[in-house]
Amino acid sequence: MSLNRKDLLGLEHLDKKDLQTVLDSVKPFKSLFTRSVKKAPTLIGKTVVTLFYEPSTRTRTSFEIAAKRLSADVVNIAVNASSVVKGESLIDTGKTLEAMKADYIIIRHSLAGAPDILARNLNASIINAGDGFHEHPTQGLLDLYTMYEKKKKIEGLKVLLVGDILHSRVAKSNIWALTKMGAQVAVAGPPTLMPSKIEELGVKVYYNLDEAIKEADVVNILRIQLERQQENLFPSVHEYVELYQLTKDRLAKAKPNVLIMHPGPMNRGIEISSEVADSPNAVINEQVTNGIAVRMAVLYLLKPNKARKYASSN
Amino acid sequence: MSLNRKDLLGLEHLDKKDLQTVLDSVKPFKSLFTRSVKKAPTLIGKTVVTLFYEPSTRTRTSFEIAAKRLSADVVNIAVNASSVVKGESLIDTGKTLEAMKADYIIIRHSLAGAPDILARNLNASIINAGDGFHEHPTQGLLDLYTMYEKKKKIEGLKVLLVGDILHSRVAKSNIWALTKMGAQVAVAGPPTLMPSKIEELGVKVYYNLDEAIKEADVVNILRIQLERQQENLFPSVHEYVELYQLTKDRLAKAKPNVLIMHPGPMNRGIEISSEVADSPNAVINEQVTNGIAVRMAVLYLLKPNKARKYASSN
Amino acid sequence: MSLNRKDLLGLEHLDKKDLQTVLDSVKPFKSLFTRSVKKAPTLIGKTVVTLFYEPSTRTRTSFEIAAKRLSADVVNIAVNASSVVKGESLIDTGKTLEAMKADYIIIRHSLAGAPDILARNLNASIINAGDGFHEHPTQGLLDLYTMYEKKKKIEGLKVLLVGDILHSRVAKSNIWALTKMGAQVAVAGPPTLMPSKIEELGVKVYYNLDEAIKEADVVNILRIQLERQQENLFPSVHEYVELYQLTKDRLAKAKPNVLIMHPGPMNRGIEISSEVADSPNAVINEQVTNGIAVRMAVLYLLKPNKARKYASSN
Repeated sequence: MSLNRKDLLGLEHLDKKDLQTVLDSVKPFKSLFTRSVKKAPTLIGKTVVTLFYEPSTRTRTSFEIAAKRLSADVVNIAVNASSVVKGESLIDTGKTLEAMKADYIIIRHSLAGAPDILARNLNASIINAGDGFHEHPTQGLLDLYTMYEKKKKIEGLKVLLVGDILHSRVAKSNIWALTKMGAQVAVAGPPTLMPSKIEELGVKVYYNLDEAIKEADVVNILRIQLERQQENLFPSVHEYVELYQLTKDRLAKAKPNVLIMHPGPMNRGIEISSEVADSPNAVINEQVTNGIAVRMAVLYLLKPNKARKYASSN
Repeated sequence: MSLNRKDLLGLEHLDKKDLQTVLDSVKPFKSLFTRSVKKAPTLIGKTVVTLFYEPSTRTRTSFEIAAKRLSADVVNIAVNASSVVKGESLIDTGKTLEAMKADYIIIRHSLAGAPDILARNLNASIINAGDGFHEHPTQGLLDLYTMYEKKKKIEGLKVLLVGDILHSRVAKSNIWALTKMGAQVAVAGPPTLMPSKIEELGVKVYYNLDEAIKEADVVNILRIQLERQQENLFPSVHEYVELYQLTKDRLAKAKPNVLIMHPGPMNRGIEISSEVADSPNAVINEQVTNGIAVRMAVLYLLKPNKARKYASSN
Repeated sequence: MSLNRKDLLGLEHLDKKDLQTVLDSVKPFKSLFTRSVKKAPTLIGKTVVTLFYEPSTRTRTSFEIAAKRLSADVVNIAVNASSVVKGESLIDTGKTLEAMKADYIIIRHSLAGAPDILARNLNASIINAGDGFHEHPTQGLLDLYTMYEKKKKIEGLKVLLVGDILHSRVAKSNIWALTKMGAQVAVAGPPTLMPSKIEELGVKVYYNLDEAIKEADVVNILRIQLERQQENLFPSVHEYVELYQLTKDRLAKAKPNVLIMHPGPMNRGIEISSEVADSPNAVINEQVTNGIAVRMAVLYLLKPNKARKYASSN
């Protein structure tokens, strides 16, 4: 199996067949985790570079473990903001890594589109690990896989995303993947954190969480970036908690077997209560496990050094 | 051989038999270092995470090399103080690493008891790499092993710890291990840096180093945290040097074959003079070599994913 | 083949035969890069430590990839300036790494001569990855190899180095290697950035780049350290660009097949124009590829734990 492309820049560019290919590929990698030797020789002799322009322990660690379990050599590069200013251009950095014969470059960048720039200019496989407010495709895929694993289907599934939709790359990648696969997606959050034309993506918009939650098969709760909230904006953290925190009382209004998901790290007591986070409905830690298996599948399915036209048609 | 437990949280919880098991296990790992290929396949396919909430090059490097020489995959996570504040809870971080199928988590934290919290909540093996003023068990074990290797026994050995006993986790781990193994332990240091009920641990207390040093078979000199010393407190650095620095003159008062130890990094000219540090009595670099072999033995002897009751009885 | 020495401290200490040995050893390592598995088992079971007292993504990454492609275990240590102040001495740090049985220590330090200090005190192989304004020997070797690969010889080659010769360790390593191999070396740059007795190294000095460039077979352009330029010094950045930037117009005055080199990272629009950087004459990315192959060759050719007299005769 293969995705017949060299890069994973966003789920907007994958079609239903591609998404199904990923879903079908995860299980063998996940089954490795129950073995004594949790490794496969898939990427032996390949070089995987993580190139992170924003700090992220969780996503970097997940990719690093995924690549090492495939027997790749992994090199971590953390670029801090100050050295970007005086430093070389992103393309020159990418060309340097390609000249070092990196097979995969996993990039996180505060600028939406940064991974696309690398993909158009390099033969290495580029994997977007989060770019600005744009996409976080492997998070979208691991969310999709977790729903698929638990609910046995995506078609017709009612999925509710809750929180700061405007600034969330996770929300966007979820919406692209879920709508393509035939899920019914709704979003709930404060009007100030809702993109203006969000309905055009085929999602239903709620501002009232108590109303939105009733029909959902899955509730995917987004992390509130506390550092982004300012006192003089609506909602304040206090107002957010009041109106949008997923509490035990709100969970009681949902279907009994509703899945509760969160990309982590959680702000307990802000977007989610501890009771809900630790409830049997929550599959938050299984998302983390699936994250590694999904990233192994993505590394396996992409084709480094494939002719670059696939990137441009991406 | 096995320690029949999943975690190493402190030497307070090991009994004499456990300590002897560690001592008996080190040599085969140390003998690897003289080979051309300094590796064993013991932990192939296992994932070892170093999770350091305090900066430490030396201890992290020692664990990293130990795990790599056992063929494990190693992932380093350095958490800086600022991200702890806004970040997720320690348990959630641990649960995330466990969901990633980490087999061992090696944690350093400024909070005494942080490793215990992880151990009680996770199936992964937790190794305490230093927690607040509490314990630093692998340092205690490598000190114990070095004495055992050089003096051929611990029983009846007279060991003197010198310095800031109050704030030293190394001192505490030494005291637990040595007293259990039948050594006679004494401590020497300024009254202001001495725990109030230290005698209850079965050690003799000296405030005068010249007197204390006469009988010792081993002198283990603790590192002075210069950043902790304040001008208005006794002793000042100048006073400390005067009263407690291990100098050539003071060494001359000790037994000729006394072992001089230091956990490093040394402040030459503060707690130890350069002459003493470089004297034939000093085994400071051998402690470093033993540190890797001891950590390999600990990784080998612990049992990840062992039923968690062993942790709670820890 | 072997260099019959344990350390690589600078190219000043290599003779023509040594340099030829390196040149003859690179190709088999470079040929690995076209294979599916880009690895050789040369250094399996060896420990390589990168010890960087100055931040450097590019050089550290190159060494890390080189060592991993030789199957070594690699440990990265980044020492920040503040911890040096309160920390242990360089020799003690080196002794600690040696006690950990590091086979190779790759050091970058702001102090010229720091690698020599380690080499004289340790049995591990020391590789200088840049020390102050002194040398950067693996950069010199990769520049030499790139010229050799493209021009099929070094003897008689006319090589022009452009820029801040005074503060450039790359310039110094280039001059030592090229003159020993029989190249005719010239330097061009502002008088304020020219060492006072540079002619004694056997190079011709130009202050006018338009004049200097005419005869060159190779132009190696040095990176301008923008942070070093101060407004009140000649030249300002603006003046530098005017007088010494390698532009398309200046390139037109050179031989048609002139090689354009740059150690990277480039300041496009400062020392080199984008048109020149992307011209067919530029071999800047091939330098990066060769950098990894050359570093693999160096790791292969050095002899760790060789009797230390070789270091002292270095």
